[in-house]
Amino acid sequence: MVYELYYWPGIQGRGEFVRLALEEGGAPYVDVALVPEEEGGGVAALQGLLGDESLAQPPFAPPFLRAGRQLIGQTANILLFLGDRLDLAPRDAAGRRWAHQLQLTIADFIVEIHDSHHPLGGDLYYEEQKPEARRRSKQFREDRLPKFLGYFERVLKSNAAGRGRRMVGTRVSHVDLSMAQVVAGLRYAFPSASRKALRGCPGLRALYDDVFSRPRVRRYAASGRRLPFNNDDIFRRYPELDG
Amino acid sequence: MVYELYYWPGIQGRGEFVRLALEEGGAPYVDVALVPEEEGGGVAALQGLLGDESLAQPPFAPPFLRAGRQLIGQTANILLFLGDRLDLAPRDAAGRRWAHQLQLTIADFIVEIHDSHHPLGGDLYYEEQKPEARRRSKQFREDRLPKFLGYFERVLKSNAAGRGRRMVGTRVSHVDLSMAQVVAGLRYAFPSASRKALRGCPGLRALYDDVFSRPRVRRYAASGRRLPFNNDDIFRRYPELDG
Repeated sequence: MVYELYYWPGIQGRGEFVRLALEEGGAPYVDVALVPEEEGGGVAALQGLLGDESLAQPPFAPPFLRAGRQLIGQTANILLFLGDRLDLAPRDAAGRRWAHQLQLTIADFIVEIHDSHHPLGGDLYYEEQKPEARRRSKQFREDRLPKFLGYFERVLKSNAAGRGRRMVGTRVSHVDLSMAQVVAGLRYAFPSASRKALRGCPGLRALYDDVFSRPRVRRYAASGRRLPFNNDDIFRRYPELDG
Repeated sequence: MVYELYYWPGIQGRGEFVRLALEEGGAPYVDVALVPEEEGGGVAALQGLLGDESLAQPPFAPPFLRAGRQLIGQTANILLFLGDRLDLAPRDAAGRRWAHQLQLTIADFIVEIHDSHHPLGGDLYYEEQKPEARRRSKQFREDRLPKFLGYFERVLKSNAAGRGRRMVGTRVSHVDLSMAQVVAGLRYAFPSASRKALRGCPGLRALYDDVFSRPRVRRYAASGRRLPFNNDDIFRRYPELDG
């Protein structure tokens, strides 16, 4: 089966967490928004589905994934589904649930990362909320960033089965992929604050190196299909927010 | 089995979404923070677990649920688990996944509801971020609130199996309970804006009436154990934010 991923073009965004799972899992997929409109793709295809009143189970927002007759929304929910299909999650119910719990905690972290530059909401440009972003990002750097990273480092170290090299279980999982992506994004957005916060997290630094040197992920990154980070995305580099 | 729910005392918060499932499911449970400290309960028990370095699978934040040997965190993840156990979710995999997707969208909505009064983050009091809360809540009332409610109303109407009376499937589910709780909270926090936004949502209004008149939920609400909403909670009534 060929999966169809629906996500906004031009940014990595939440879609990238799904892409990394598809790539590492070796799953054939079409990134629908990148297909020309004449061939049924583009943003038109994505917005067509979002506005399709005939859908009984409509997604609220991208990313969403078509897998045969199913249309699955919510990043963590997609990864819960793909984790089983692509063998990127523990096989026992309790292990899958724990992996999903971590993925949901990563999702919470991502909201806070995004809100550090958009505390007043998405309808205003960053330039219209700079003083507020400075206040919010100060708290983010000093309190939330070390708290989240410290938690994930602790989880990594506590996972005896993974010898401190896997977030859950013994094999690479969607949690490892997402965690490495968060480290990548933080290093882009907050080069100074993330360096400081990652000093005490040797496990996460090693996890990042491990994930991004896996053959399939490396091939994907070298393909040109993995977009560079940019300032329309979740992770944004505004030096004034980096302390 | 007696479940143990760990959540902050004094507020409904995210714990209430779990309580409603436990109550409607008729599951015996202990609300650990309400048990006297001398008997092993209280906030001390909750913080003891949060700080317990020996836990291999530590939760990041409350609520979390102990079910036998499992300790399960993240509200939506707990409800995914309880949905199966308490027969509060569709029994087929695709139906359970769709219910979970909606629960995750409710979780996103709750973050935005909370942030309407705390846009600059949780380390500052509301009184320290009032002008920012006014700006953020204006966008919330005018854009996000109608968008989320309109989406959920559409989902309700599209569910032919539930005859427009159930969010998913034919029977009451954790999604119905959580959705009704959100309507309750919005009516407390934004009496004016929610009345306006709910005008076009007869399905959600009827769902609220249905859920809160179910015998077990009514008994729970009348027991004194369901706390009133208050301004330390997610849903807060600040007239200046209601437009």
